[in-house]
Amino acid sequence: MNFRKRTAHCGELRPSDAGRTVVLNGWVNARRDYGSIVFIDLRDREGVTQVVLDATDNPELAANLKDVRSEWVLWVEGAVRMRENPNPKIPTGLVEIVVRDAGVINRSEVPPFEIVDDLQTNEELRLQYRYLDLRRPTIQQKLLMRSRLASVTREYFSAEGFAEVETPVLTRSTPEGARDYLVPSRVNKGRFYALPQSPQLFKQLLMVSGFDRYMQIVKVFRDEDLRADRQPEFTQIDIEMSFVEQSDIMAMTERYVQHVWKRLLDIDLDLGFRQVTFADAMNTYGSDKPDLRYGLPIVDVTDYAASSSFVVFKSAADAGHVVKALRIPDAASFSRKQIDELTDLAKTHGAGGLPYLKLVQGEVSGSFSKNLPPDEATTLLSACSAADGDLVLFAVGEWERACTILGALRIEAARRLDLVSKTTTPYSMLWITEFPLLEHDPEEQRWVARHHPFTSPMTEDLHLLESNPGAIRARAYDLVMNGYEAAGGSVRIHDSTVQQRMFDLIGMSVEEANAKFGFLLKALKYGAPPHGGIAFGFDRLAMVLAGTNNIRDVIAFPKTTSGLSLMDGCPSDVDDKQLAELGIALRQ
Amino acid sequence: MNFRKRTAHCGELRPSDAGRTVVLNGWVNARRDYGSIVFIDLRDREGVTQVVLDATDNPELAANLKDVRSEWVLWVEGAVRMRENPNPKIPTGLVEIVVRDAGVINRSEVPPFEIVDDLQTNEELRLQYRYLDLRRPTIQQKLLMRSRLASVTREYFSAEGFAEVETPVLTRSTPEGARDYLVPSRVNKGRFYALPQSPQLFKQLLMVSGFDRYMQIVKVFRDEDLRADRQPEFTQIDIEMSFVEQSDIMAMTERYVQHVWKRLLDIDLDLGFRQVTFADAMNTYGSDKPDLRYGLPIVDVTDYAASSSFVVFKSAADAGHVVKALRIPDAASFSRKQIDELTDLAKTHGAGGLPYLKLVQGEVSGSFSKNLPPDEATTLLSACSAADGDLVLFAVGEWERACTILGALRIEAARRLDLVSKTTTPYSMLWITEFPLLEHDPEEQRWVARHHPFTSPMTEDLHLLESNPGAIRARAYDLVMNGYEAAGGSVRIHDSTVQQRMFDLIGMSVEEANAKFGFLLKALKYGAPPHGGIAFGFDRLAMVLAGTNNIRDVIAFPKTTSGLSLMDGCPSDVDDKQLAELGIALRQ
Repeated sequence: MNFRKRTAHCGELRPSDAGRTVVLNGWVNARRDYGSIVFIDLRDREGVTQVVLDATDNPELAANLKDVRSEWVLWVEGAVRMRENPNPKIPTGLVEIVVRDAGVINRSEVPPFEIVDDLQTNEELRLQYRYLDLRRPTIQQKLLMRSRLASVTREYFSAEGFAEVETPVLTRSTPEGARDYLVPSRVNKGRFYALPQSPQLFKQLLMVSGFDRYMQIVKVFRDEDLRADRQPEFTQIDIEMSFVEQSDIMAMTERYVQHVWKRLLDIDLDLGFRQVTFADAMNTYGSDKPDLRYGLPIVDVTDYAASSSFVVFKSAADAGHVVKALRIPDAASFSRKQIDELTDLAKTHGAGGLPYLKLVQGEVSGSFSKNLPPDEATTLLSACSAADGDLVLFAVGEWERACTILGALRIEAARRLDLVSKTTTPYSMLWITEFPLLEHDPEEQRWVARHHPFTSPMTEDLHLLESNPGAIRARAYDLVMNGYEAAGGSVRIHDSTVQQRMFDLIGMSVEEANAKFGFLLKALKYGAPPHGGIAFGFDRLAMVLAGTNNIRDVIAFPKTTSGLSLMDGCPSDVDDKQLAELGIALRQ
Repeated sequence: MNFRKRTAHCGELRPSDAGRTVVLNGWVNARRDYGSIVFIDLRDREGVTQVVLDATDNPELAANLKDVRSEWVLWVEGAVRMRENPNPKIPTGLVEIVVRDAGVINRSEVPPFEIVDDLQTNEELRLQYRYLDLRRPTIQQKLLMRSRLASVTREYFSAEGFAEVETPVLTRSTPEGARDYLVPSRVNKGRFYALPQSPQLFKQLLMVSGFDRYMQIVKVFRDEDLRADRQPEFTQIDIEMSFVEQSDIMAMTERYVQHVWKRLLDIDLDLGFRQVTFADAMNTYGSDKPDLRYGLPIVDVTDYAASSSFVVFKSAADAGHVVKALRIPDAASFSRKQIDELTDLAKTHGAGGLPYLKLVQGEVSGSFSKNLPPDEATTLLSACSAADGDLVLFAVGEWERACTILGALRIEAARRLDLVSKTTTPYSMLWITEFPLLEHDPEEQRWVARHHPFTSPMTEDLHLLESNPGAIRARAYDLVMNGYEAAGGSVRIHDSTVQQRMFDLIGMSVEEANAKFGFLLKALKYGAPPHGGIAFGFDRLAMVLAGTNNIRDVIAFPKTTSGLSLMDGCPSDVDDKQLAELGIALRQ
């Protein structure tokens, strides 16, 4: 041992400790040399403490420590005393340590960037030296918050009687939905495991087994083309319950969220989160995960459009399409350029263009104001509750598309008007319910499950199974927080006949269903209990709680959007010998 | 909803509940039909409750339930009353429910085997219908015990200031030790991720980052040829600490084990587990994971052998080899066949044969008694402390091999003499310390790390690095429970120069070291703290606590020794389309 072990952390000393002799171990956060007096800020996970070395009293020690620079590791022994110049910004800022003895535990080269919270370095360099990036208190605090989140999550579910059961990582590939990551088997050459996209089937089987209440914080994998907020591997809080209906699962979930907010943020949330159906959410907010920290509701003006002189509106209404409007208060001042940007955004969501109207000092202007008689314009604007100074955007077309266009514009408008920072509800919790069970895949010309094919239809819609599948609503629900889909779940099918009908509906033959999910169909025949569950995106939840918009801030060793780990350089080439053992080869 | 939700579990009702009306939900465990009276044992996770249906009082209900058979799912409403014929074997055995109303929630086909604890069905069928196998209370209890183990583990480490940090599952392949499972990357074709064999490097990097105390319960993967007690994926309790030495980590570990035994078994373990060096363990027990629930020590008789008339002994001693003896009390009665079996076992561990002596009523017999003058035989047997009726087995040869042979015979002897069931110490906890840092790989003609190449040498042996690498002891330690290696750990190298010397020593060039572990070598240059840790085999620990010898009893969805999941049929064939997307093909 070349160091003396700490007797205190760098974050704990207070005036009441004055006079105590302590040993600290930590990293040099900063060093200020005034010749005869040297100040060192020593840092560990818990905080920073100022250390003072008086070279006059202790010339030998001062000489030994003269090379010490940032990020060196030291042990320091000395007495706690009150500071002459207190630093009110840090919890230990009233005291300092007068060094009696000290030593270097390890040296550090000059790091490629400073270990400070407000680092401006590009993210690539930070990820390459992730172990140094993780020294920054702001990142460390977020990861410690994530650790506490895991803790209070398990504490809650354990107290509620949920058993933690581990499900396999090496599973069967069931190509349905996103792409699987495959793992070649060496022992069974030519065959492959798949990394799970979710433990869905296993948790349902645990219910069939009578485990009653299951939870797991578990890694899942999707080989999708990555977007900024996606990672190839991510973490899920996975929940399943037996002998329950939808309202039980939702109530259990709300109590969990309440527990987390209380324990981690000391915020009291009211139970009975608002519930909005999928149809209402699309109609009013143009999204199935609307951010309700602000308003900006969408209004339907199709009725008006049916008798409009504006041919674009009229023909849309005649064709059975819809016309929707989004009023943006005080946005009539948006410039031509700003409107063009909004138009481009609308087009990325499938709009042909972006009809708009402005009302300024009683004057109506806009992209189609000349196509409207003045009284019609007034009627239309008043249907949109437009006031002087407002901008009104319109979307025309097929219902879901028109809603989605205005949904995207609603978010952009809120960003421009900075509505989130002006909100009085910092956390918007919202259930979306009554999702469609199916959606039509135009490419494959068949129905596909919107959630997954084990989701139970709503009992009152069962009669539509053959006649109008697109209208069947599912017993599925999403929990939306501040515009993020924080969790999603459903009541599952527990009847093997209904499950087989569901497979039929999505065009899966009996043979195919048996090959892929035979074990589930079989399991449902041996006394499956009614069951359902929910899964939280753990990384997203940690993000919301840590107040960051960057998912990589709450993942210790994240990958880039191309799935690379810049620190260890994976994925990497491997020896052909390894591939030969696995019975595979690279394609030419 | 086609059922009434439970107001009580099937395990909670007691005489004090008599008179209460309750609803139970559960599975039919057994049904006994006496015509006018039907008894149904209803089962859920918490237990079994007897339900009585009187067909005379309730003819319509009786008719509705007349088809009910084992494993059907029912809801039952009725009053609790005292039983006329109590069943003292179950906690609810004093009461029963008199059915007022009830219904079938789901039916069950006749299961392929009975849901009973003492099931004799072969394991293959059980694994195929794992969801039914998991209904058996004995398996369910073991998995619930495992869940509680996870809970108390996290509770302990969280209270001790350990942060839970998730490390990646998609990592870099570093072929050193066991084989990696590889995962082809679609986005970066021709390159591969590897599933981690341990989060070793990541947890060390977290220490470099200042996380100070890390824990994780985490899946790890090794593509080894499987043995009966191995699984391709298994779970580890992974621990790492900064600013500590070996004794701190061992003390922390002991307190954890004490906490677990108290909380799960209500057993008080004394701290200060026995510590035995690797050399002593091999010498005395012929194993680095000896089961000390029984004695049977090995003795060294090389000194005697040096002057023996038995040429096998003499020439071994002259060649610098050893002669070791294992006395088995009261085993002189072993038959010729039994001795032959022991000889075969010795041979599987590299013995040429199995020299032995018996002492019966003062008479010495055995495989080489005729080669020994009587006084020499007496001296030898007394050196082994042999008494009348004893059998003494000998191993001759290179030290580690001779020890290992007798170590295997020691375990077999204990099994035959049933020593474990006669023990007074049901849990033997033991540290093995001072492992050799390196071992010589005769195939590759080089030194390899015995533990892993990040293990710190003992400071007092550092001078042997170049002169006698085989004699260097490591700051490594294993925790052995009842003959299982429950945990293993080490103090790590935190100095980049020492780490580079270690890579040199195992014949890894600077280029190779940089290519594989460059990020670690680099990280050690930026102020790495002294650190070390330990990892528990979580499945093994659960096994010991659950009192089973079958690792599949504590894994919800285990694989067979050929890596198959018999339930879902993985690994499986995949479409060539999937392989093409990944840029790989099967080899011809």
